[in-house]
Amino acid sequence: MVLVTYDVSTTTEAGKKRLRHVAKQCVNYGQRVQNSVFECLLDPAQFAALKNKLEGIINKDEDSLRYYFLGSNWKRRVEHVGARQTFDPEGTIIV
Amino acid sequence: MVLVTYDVSTTTEAGKKRLRHVAKQCVNYGQRVQNSVFECLLDPAQFAALKNKLEGIINKDEDSLRYYFLGSNWKRRVEHVGARQTFDPEGTIIV
Repeated sequence: MVLVTYDVSTTTEAGKKRLRHVAKQCVNYGQRVQNSVFECLLDPAQFAALKNKLEGIINKDEDSLRYYFLGSNWKRRVEHVGARQTFDPEGTIIV
Repeated sequence: MVLVTYDVSTTTEAGKKRLRHVAKQCVNYGQRVQNSVFECLLDPAQFAALKNKLEGIINKDEDSLRYYFLGSNWKRRVEHVGARQTFDPEGTIIV
């Protein structure tokens, strides 16, 4: 599993647009677990495609993306507390 | 390394206050790498203390916390793109 987290500067209209575009791409590839945090089950080709899209959207001077590679045993590596935005990324998407 | 990510509802003044308090605790325990993402190098006792503090601050009906346990080889599991808020959590803190 690849965890994707992002910070997009929303002080300008252009920034708000970038944020929406980044979120939209991430929704296509994974499960939103928090506002700017997505859990994505991707093979290497899918990861390369997502990376390419996201890096084409962000402004590298203002925004950032981080990828965390959790491996296949990722479920043992996650703990959640509080309100849930969604459930199991391998299960049904609840929006 | 424990990655801490949070979503705190800021639609109310109380929510904004919770967000500030959560961020303040996280700053005490780790390195801020994005707005709501912290990388914390913690032993089990420190993790328990942080968890206890954060879970005492959030409203579990509205906010969420996620912990990702990246292990000791965590540096091989992280990739960053774009603007940097900070650097190496084992190095000097740059604010």
